[in-house]
Amino acid sequence: MEKQFVARGVIPPMVTPLDPDRRLDAAGLSRLVEHILSGGVHGLFLLGTTGEATDLDYDLRRDLVRRVCDQVAGRVPVLVGVTDTVFDESVRMADWARACGAAAVVAAPPYYFAAGQPELLAYYRRLADALPLPLFLYNMPSQVKVSIAVPTVVALARHPGIIGLKDSSGNIGYFNACRYALQDDPAFSILMGPEEAMGEAVLMGAAGGVAGGANMFPRLFVDLYEAAVAHDVDTVVALQRRVMRISSLIYGIGHHNSSFVKGVKCALSLMGVCGDMLAAPREPFNASDREMVRQRLCELGVLR
Amino acid sequence: MEKQFVARGVIPPMVTPLDPDRRLDAAGLSRLVEHILSGGVHGLFLLGTTGEATDLDYDLRRDLVRRVCDQVAGRVPVLVGVTDTVFDESVRMADWARACGAAAVVAAPPYYFAAGQPELLAYYRRLADALPLPLFLYNMPSQVKVSIAVPTVVALARHPGIIGLKDSSGNIGYFNACRYALQDDPAFSILMGPEEAMGEAVLMGAAGGVAGGANMFPRLFVDLYEAAVAHDVDTVVALQRRVMRISSLIYGIGHHNSSFVKGVKCALSLMGVCGDMLAAPREPFNASDREMVRQRLCELGVLR
Amino acid sequence: MEKQFVARGVIPPMVTPLDPDRRLDAAGLSRLVEHILSGGVHGLFLLGTTGEATDLDYDLRRDLVRRVCDQVAGRVPVLVGVTDTVFDESVRMADWARACGAAAVVAAPPYYFAAGQPELLAYYRRLADALPLPLFLYNMPSQVKVSIAVPTVVALARHPGIIGLKDSSGNIGYFNACRYALQDDPAFSILMGPEEAMGEAVLMGAAGGVAGGANMFPRLFVDLYEAAVAHDVDTVVALQRRVMRISSLIYGIGHHNSSFVKGVKCALSLMGVCGDMLAAPREPFNASDREMVRQRLCELGVLR
Amino acid sequence: MEKQFVARGVIPPMVTPLDPDRRLDAAGLSRLVEHILSGGVHGLFLLGTTGEATDLDYDLRRDLVRRVCDQVAGRVPVLVGVTDTVFDESVRMADWARACGAAAVVAAPPYYFAAGQPELLAYYRRLADALPLPLFLYNMPSQVKVSIAVPTVVALARHPGIIGLKDSSGNIGYFNACRYALQDDPAFSILMGPEEAMGEAVLMGAAGGVAGGANMFPRLFVDLYEAAVAHDVDTVVALQRRVMRISSLIYGIGHHNSSFVKGVKCALSLMGVCGDMLAAPREPFNASDREMVRQRLCELGVLR
Repeated sequence: MEKQFVARGVIPPMVTPLDPDRRLDAAGLSRLVEHILSGGVHGLFLLGTTGEATDLDYDLRRDLVRRVCDQVAGRVPVLVGVTDTVFDESVRMADWARACGAAAVVAAPPYYFAAGQPELLAYYRRLADALPLPLFLYNMPSQVKVSIAVPTVVALARHPGIIGLKDSSGNIGYFNACRYALQDDPAFSILMGPEEAMGEAVLMGAAGGVAGGANMFPRLFVDLYEAAVAHDVDTVVALQRRVMRISSLIYGIGHHNSSFVKGVKCALSLMGVCGDMLAAPREPFNASDREMVRQRLCELGVLR
Repeated sequence: MEKQFVARGVIPPMVTPLDPDRRLDAAGLSRLVEHILSGGVHGLFLLGTTGEATDLDYDLRRDLVRRVCDQVAGRVPVLVGVTDTVFDESVRMADWARACGAAAVVAAPPYYFAAGQPELLAYYRRLADALPLPLFLYNMPSQVKVSIAVPTVVALARHPGIIGLKDSSGNIGYFNACRYALQDDPAFSILMGPEEAMGEAVLMGAAGGVAGGANMFPRLFVDLYEAAVAHDVDTVVALQRRVMRISSLIYGIGHHNSSFVKGVKCALSLMGVCGDMLAAPREPFNASDREMVRQRLCELGVLR
Repeated sequence: MEKQFVARGVIPPMVTPLDPDRRLDAAGLSRLVEHILSGGVHGLFLLGTTGEATDLDYDLRRDLVRRVCDQVAGRVPVLVGVTDTVFDESVRMADWARACGAAAVVAAPPYYFAAGQPELLAYYRRLADALPLPLFLYNMPSQVKVSIAVPTVVALARHPGIIGLKDSSGNIGYFNACRYALQDDPAFSILMGPEEAMGEAVLMGAAGGVAGGANMFPRLFVDLYEAAVAHDVDTVVALQRRVMRISSLIYGIGHHNSSFVKGVKCALSLMGVCGDMLAAPREPFNASDREMVRQRLCELGVLR
Repeated sequence: MEKQFVARGVIPPMVTPLDPDRRLDAAGLSRLVEHILSGGVHGLFLLGTTGEATDLDYDLRRDLVRRVCDQVAGRVPVLVGVTDTVFDESVRMADWARACGAAAVVAAPPYYFAAGQPELLAYYRRLADALPLPLFLYNMPSQVKVSIAVPTVVALARHPGIIGLKDSSGNIGYFNACRYALQDDPAFSILMGPEEAMGEAVLMGAAGGVAGGANMFPRLFVDLYEAAVAHDVDTVVALQRRVMRISSLIYGIGHHNSSFVKGVKCALSLMGVCGDMLAAPREPFNASDREMVRQRLCELGVLR
């Protein structure tokens, strides 16, 4: 496998629209895909943390991948999350993704037993060997309890099947250390997870960002990316401020680990894109939290 | 559902014997079940952390449950772990467990998104409502990133389908606070996870222990339990020392999160009970670690 | 130095009575010392976490040590906390403690830079070499971010100036591993920090406990200790329940890291022993929290 | 107090030169101050984490402040760390700093008892009220176990005596959220702690950086700052790469929490600026680690 697929740009981690019975909301999904693509994004990432992948039924995950790949029909590359504690389930999902036409898969470390670095090294090599698609590493220590250490990333980058790193740690020292260590490898893409740092990351040379807010505002993030690539600092600063405003208004409502996903889904629902149901056992925002999101979308000029 | 099943005594968290291709080792499994039952244990817990449940293929999990339930044939109650990030998979596994004849199921909190306490409360109620078997709570903060807080346990104990708590936190203040808060509820069993504290826990009134070492030495833990129930402190102290000796000799070899499971499986392999293979992506001990286990089993008088 | 001083029994970690201006409350201190000693305790531990040591002015700390040593006048051994980030301050405080007549000192690891185990080993050896009094190790990972690992404790126990370990981790596996590893060293005392586990710890052979609740109820803890030493399990269970009741009623009020100290000081104030002021920057309970403590002391039969 | 002092630019957190007996190395200190000032830095920060402040004798700290203020003689503003668990010691050190001519003080939260946010709010207000100099907040969660939450920072920024935030968390989402929330307050300076992110932080609008590497390479960081202020992205990228190279070569040698300080002091020693001794209980690098630093300084072209 040559590393021909190079991920760049804005690759939104798509939420998974669910109907009130927690089945796939096919109509909402279809609207969401077009809504996102209309913003000019450079790819689509299914079944990440924002997509609530680990909490979805396998049948639903497969249905989602098939539908989105069919609908996207090659307009942008589709990346599919295959993070799992069961090794063979990751492989099965990757086989499915390939059959559906996805371009690459993404895997965070197994998340029950926290692996040591030698175990992570062995795990990712073994996984990349078994996969039919190129693999993105996904660093997500807050959920999986372990960070893929910089030397581990560097060693894995040499594997022909491993093509990049999505870092959602928010740890800027870690992110920049990975970028520095791999700066001479144009085939290895490093993507910034938190949208709150996407502008500066791309300005400094990162390949792009996996911005959850691009579910709602895809064009904003594409504009931000393009300004950063063009080294137009003033525009980057201005657009990043808009991103921070969205972040401060929408993502902090509610409590607990999943308030980001709840906020994005609630906003999409108020914008008429798709419903706000979450994977079991989580519940959508209650009426008062929902009303707060509504008011803040008005403040942002998105609703009236 | 009345809470008629009351778990008491030594309920070993069984390892899952695998062959070199990581399929179920049926012959080893059969020997292991008889080896454990021969020690007079009071139950058997399948698919817990020691059983590497989260990392096993679902088909393999189901095969394991069916085989063990068939073999045990009612000699002791069988408890089955149904911990999962996917709600419906927990329910499906519980349905299967019931069909196979299991007595109860055990669930740690969902382990990707760390739930807040209100979410845990809602999750366990919803789960208990959906399950066909009584449910044990499983507190395992080191793996799932969140502890089931004492008030949450107390509230859940009122649910007719929730019959106990297995606490593997090792936090003695937490364990005793749960026991104190629920001391007047004879239908709610609190079991000590770490075998290093089983003797004193039962001495003070806990219902029993889920001792991983009972895979190797079931009689030792049964003797310890009985001495504790009889308030024979001298015997408890002496037997608990034997447990500590095993713990210090066998569980600390190797590194990483899973060294306990590796040590137990390696010892069982050297004792001729079953093989030492682990679920992917983990590997068994290498030759030198294995030799160290062998020497230590000699020190313990188990091998010659 | 031979390890002639062997700490045993109930050694309360004394709170530091402060007046409303946060100076030493000399009258309250005098009453508190007699209140505690009247319960038959086996020692007194000044300037621990419960004593808010790290937050007190050095002059105040010295004044406290001198006054208490003078008042105790050899009735029980006095232990003095010398935990500090500045090495020489620990030594100076130990020199002062010796001059005042204290029996031993107690030191948690330096708590700004978290030391590695080789650094802890070197630190404690160097400290013990420099001290004029025998030294107790103080394991307190929640505050100092690092645990003194079992092998480090074992290595340090060989130093003639190091006579014991106070473990406040609440981690029962750690506590029992230390006890098992050092069971053949009668000159090394291992004391249980959390009072919620004191009964069982002494029952199993621990040397005693450093129970904060003994500021309020010294006799209760002495009775518990004696029942445990006598292997009178029924009495241990009954008295430990009383301890758990106090713990659940008094220590959980209020929020934040220091609610334990606030609860104990508030109760002592309501019992007429000493004031409830805390070291800066902390404030005592407000009126409603204080009223809750009062009601709960009534429930406990301590107030009417 | 009007907020007339506005911190901007490169403000190195100075290491504290010590002689082999761990007393202040006056000659080395004098050379170090000139070495740093020669690079054109915009201020000097004494007694931070890099300065090992918490582990230094109070007399030594005072001596250091006096000497540096005298030597600097107003060429740049001097900031003095007053972080302490003892409230009055912070005030005393600030009084001393003012008497010596310092421009501001810097305080991380008290670091034994981890304060809750309401306690932090009260603490910093109380501290700012008591101080004779303007106060910088210092966010350092890895050492003090608590982060100053964004709303707390925002509330504190309204206090006339609080003039800025130094954030050493490395958490880019936190840093940018603080900057966004306070973007309209030109009198409140937000400084980036980790030098690995200084370029992009200033590019995006941060006031400057507290770069430990500027002890060795002050001019590099000043150039980086100036390029960032001028929005010269190519130069920022190139200079930041140089910073990353230094970081990857020098700071990762050795182990434990303090390897950064050890690396910087060892390099300064090899460069002939000052000795490499550390505050007790830490030891400088051993011969082989030192040799590695030497080789890497050669790689960097600093030594031959």
